[in-house]
Amino acid sequence: MAHTVRPPVPDTRADGGALTRFTARHGSTLERAREVIRTREHWSPYAEDPEDPQAYGRGARAAGEASFRRLLGRPFDLGQPGRDGTVGPAPEAGGERSPYGGPLEVSYPHCDPDVLLPAMRAALPLWRDAGPEARAAVCAEILHRINARSSEFAHAAVHTSGHNFLMAFHAGAVHAQDRGLEAVACALAEQTRLPAASLWRKPQGDGRAVTLAKTFTAVPRGISLVIANSVFPTWNSYPALFASLATGNPVLVKPHPAAVLPLALTVRIAREVLTEAGFPADLVCLAAEHPGEGLARTLATRPEVRLVDYAGTTAFGRWLEDNARQARVFTSGSAVNSLLVESTGDYRDMLANLAFSVSLYSGQLCTSPQNLLIPRDGISTDEGHRTYEEIVADLGTALDALLADDTGAAAVLGALLGPPVLERLERVMAGEAGKVAVPSRAVRDPAHPEAVIRTPAVVALDANRAEDRAVLLAEWLGPVVFAVAVDSVSDAVALVSRTTRECGALSVGLYSTSPEVEAAMEAACAEAGVMLSANLMGDWYISQSAVYSDLHGTGMNPSGNAVYCDAAFVSARFHTVGVRRYGGAI
Amino acid sequence: MAHTVRPPVPDTRADGGALTRFTARHGSTLERAREVIRTREHWSPYAEDPEDPQAYGRGARAAGEASFRRLLGRPFDLGQPGRDGTVGPAPEAGGERSPYGGPLEVSYPHCDPDVLLPAMRAALPLWRDAGPEARAAVCAEILHRINARSSEFAHAAVHTSGHNFLMAFHAGAVHAQDRGLEAVACALAEQTRLPAASLWRKPQGDGRAVTLAKTFTAVPRGISLVIANSVFPTWNSYPALFASLATGNPVLVKPHPAAVLPLALTVRIAREVLTEAGFPADLVCLAAEHPGEGLARTLATRPEVRLVDYAGTTAFGRWLEDNARQARVFTSGSAVNSLLVESTGDYRDMLANLAFSVSLYSGQLCTSPQNLLIPRDGISTDEGHRTYEEIVADLGTALDALLADDTGAAAVLGALLGPPVLERLERVMAGEAGKVAVPSRAVRDPAHPEAVIRTPAVVALDANRAEDRAVLLAEWLGPVVFAVAVDSVSDAVALVSRTTRECGALSVGLYSTSPEVEAAMEAACAEAGVMLSANLMGDWYISQSAVYSDLHGTGMNPSGNAVYCDAAFVSARFHTVGVRRYGGAI
Repeated sequence: MAHTVRPPVPDTRADGGALTRFTARHGSTLERAREVIRTREHWSPYAEDPEDPQAYGRGARAAGEASFRRLLGRPFDLGQPGRDGTVGPAPEAGGERSPYGGPLEVSYPHCDPDVLLPAMRAALPLWRDAGPEARAAVCAEILHRINARSSEFAHAAVHTSGHNFLMAFHAGAVHAQDRGLEAVACALAEQTRLPAASLWRKPQGDGRAVTLAKTFTAVPRGISLVIANSVFPTWNSYPALFASLATGNPVLVKPHPAAVLPLALTVRIAREVLTEAGFPADLVCLAAEHPGEGLARTLATRPEVRLVDYAGTTAFGRWLEDNARQARVFTSGSAVNSLLVESTGDYRDMLANLAFSVSLYSGQLCTSPQNLLIPRDGISTDEGHRTYEEIVADLGTALDALLADDTGAAAVLGALLGPPVLERLERVMAGEAGKVAVPSRAVRDPAHPEAVIRTPAVVALDANRAEDRAVLLAEWLGPVVFAVAVDSVSDAVALVSRTTRECGALSVGLYSTSPEVEAAMEAACAEAGVMLSANLMGDWYISQSAVYSDLHGTGMNPSGNAVYCDAAFVSARFHTVGVRRYGGAI
Repeated sequence: MAHTVRPPVPDTRADGGALTRFTARHGSTLERAREVIRTREHWSPYAEDPEDPQAYGRGARAAGEASFRRLLGRPFDLGQPGRDGTVGPAPEAGGERSPYGGPLEVSYPHCDPDVLLPAMRAALPLWRDAGPEARAAVCAEILHRINARSSEFAHAAVHTSGHNFLMAFHAGAVHAQDRGLEAVACALAEQTRLPAASLWRKPQGDGRAVTLAKTFTAVPRGISLVIANSVFPTWNSYPALFASLATGNPVLVKPHPAAVLPLALTVRIAREVLTEAGFPADLVCLAAEHPGEGLARTLATRPEVRLVDYAGTTAFGRWLEDNARQARVFTSGSAVNSLLVESTGDYRDMLANLAFSVSLYSGQLCTSPQNLLIPRDGISTDEGHRTYEEIVADLGTALDALLADDTGAAAVLGALLGPPVLERLERVMAGEAGKVAVPSRAVRDPAHPEAVIRTPAVVALDANRAEDRAVLLAEWLGPVVFAVAVDSVSDAVALVSRTTRECGALSVGLYSTSPEVEAAMEAACAEAGVMLSANLMGDWYISQSAVYSDLHGTGMNPSGNAVYCDAAFVSARFHTVGVRRYGGAI
């Protein structure tokens, strides 16, 4: 492979051998990551069990909570240049408030972009000249240290995004780390496609040959701005953060005002590791903002910013594409995910799988299914024919069974992200979206009595009614599921296509025992550009995305142009500059 | 490698086994092309000698000329749908005129986009479903047939772009074919990074494992519009044409009105091969335009068009980026290339190399050096110190020696592209750009008395004079070279950086025996984003680009964002859609 013949990294930095240690420590992990992104098999270096003593030590969950508690009620310093103010700690000054109750009372530095951006730009050459392998090793060390503190990150995710703890440990910690490492592995692969050096020899007619000694150097684009969301502040920003950093770009992280802490922790760790490795800490900075400041707009249109990654509303994604013209803009926006229930050979498992899929994190995942399309004449199952009405009722029963116990329900549902989600659910419960077939109920988490937790409402819609179509062709983020009666499979497939093309989708589901129906859905999904999950049962759900294996997004529909993590997501972040030196005619 | 485990291409087309034959015929060529784009070594399957009897048969040059002559004075039919008019044959009706004299009197079909684009879109699914390997084989067969007719293509290039025959045979035929095959190899590599199918197995706590059978399918973006130029109609469009086609996109070629024939031939051959292989011919179409129609603007902003590639002026490239917002736009625009003469150990060879570089095709290559930066105090050489004035005079002597004989000079210079180039040269000769140090002279090609052929003018400029800087910071396409006096190496390096950043550059040159100067230029070129060629001697020139080895462009400066052929150039042309099928908990 080309990357094995690269010259050693020139090491002129005073780092006490840290870079060499990081390179040795993470070499085999990076090699394995590069292998699995080719094979797409299951793998992760980060243990999924928060109580795994080998991975995290004994009592890691409690220790992580204690570490998290120590962060609260005090300033979070980062040592960044250009500090000109403070964000928080009071919520009215930009401080965060836990969806499980109470303000975090953490304050963050606010920095002047006119100081911060030049400092970041000045840090670029040393990082660029270090080369892809050194950058990958530093990134892997950052992720390694984040991983060691996964429980602390999980508690931060609980109290900013409203995840339940296990989901926070997964989506807010280890799976986000996986997405980061995946991006590092992709970046290493993409940057080493060309040899660092090669000898070119062209025979001439006279028996001699022209020779040229060539070098190919990966050169970053410039400062990378990562605008994070509040739902998955780490999972939705680590791909961009690490893809940009690993390809040589300084990264400025602009957190969502409601979820600063997980990214402040991330930036602090990155700055520590960079410093230890002899690189400028300002290669990674945080841009916390004052309430109403609109800092994302200001930063995204700065000439120094050459990459913008954004996860959030489709509308602001479009604004960025229209206005941040000096940058390459990657977006992850809204999604309306559809799922067709056509037939099944395992009715009970299907219902259980569906109930869990629509309940997990209260349907607030970007991959949660919203529109369940069901033939109005019913479906055939291993338990005989089931009518549309029976399926809806049976789904209600499955939801009741899954969410019967408040403590168990809270662990699946997490908390509602904020007042807009609750207001939307209340409008649905008032019948605004259609007839409520399965009502939502409030769940009380004994450990967090202030948390707003609700079970999903199932609303019966009819695909043939114009007003119902208007309802289902919009995103209803939160615990709202539409059971949409359709005339036929072909109508359903057409509706899936239309929804994906018009509203964007990240995930489409299907339950069917018919190869023809599966083929039709597969063709429609290829045409509209969305991943299809067929007949998922047991402990794997449509909303889940397996890092190193599943691509997240396709870049083909309005849900966004970012794909975690394909070659285009990474190769747009750097360029290659060649040098040719004449080597004589020999 | 992932690509070896793909399932066989499903072959439901009635093609008489043609696709199987193409796959067998080109398998090893494609494999070798994939290897050399990794190693960047010298290679080509297309012979550079037009008289090579093994490659092209005896008398190929004359036979090619006869074939070319048979095309003249008659309609060029393509069998495309939606024909609503005729372009040409008269020049005032859009017919081409040879830079070597006389109209070609060929007419082309004009087609209604409202018929053509839907027909192309309808052709997409079968081509998409054929898969990367089948598409690569078809593309390789198209290039193979184009290669067999290289002499005919070269004559077409002579009489549209004004190349001399050998240059036309290279840049207009075999090297363009190389760029096409390079793009096909890159496309095959990029599309097969993920396995077509893989089994994912995740162990569960209970000793069982969740399994998912996954497929990953490359899906094209949509119709690809390739807007060609007149200087290198094939060389500048084959990368895009073949990258788009190989990744599954139908391709609409919009030729420059002055150079339709080489692309009409290309489209005809592509349509023949596609038809033979059982695919719709309308996957490749030509969009000839009426004079003043502005068809590029109309087509580029159509919603069906999802990729636009353009080679031409930077201004129209910007218009496309601003207006074709529904598409991914790749541009190749203007360039102002600089070369610093700082010192040399081989003064005679350097002068000979420089003289040829500025003379080849009358400086009309996008990689031709325009600004020769020379220290005003002179340089050290193996022949002792040389003053600025001596270097300019010696360059004039080297040009005289190279271009002494009219027939030989015509073979190097080719013809001027058109009246604007001649007018610009005449303004320069009138002293408008500065003091003429080496005058241009008219050359008479005995075989083409009507051709407008001129030797290069060398103009003395001073980097310290504001009016001279304004002159050198603009593109003077044609036989115009500026010998720019600079105070110091650091001034020269700064001027190279500024020129590249402000005007765009595709190539920077250096003659120096000093490692420090070389390092400074290398750093400046990495920062500004332009390829550096150091101390080229003998038969390799700064304006040359070795396909499969040199990247053409960096995407970092205003000369354009297209790079022939990096991963980003190809991976943006398709997306990947995954399907996950539950395989049970086993």
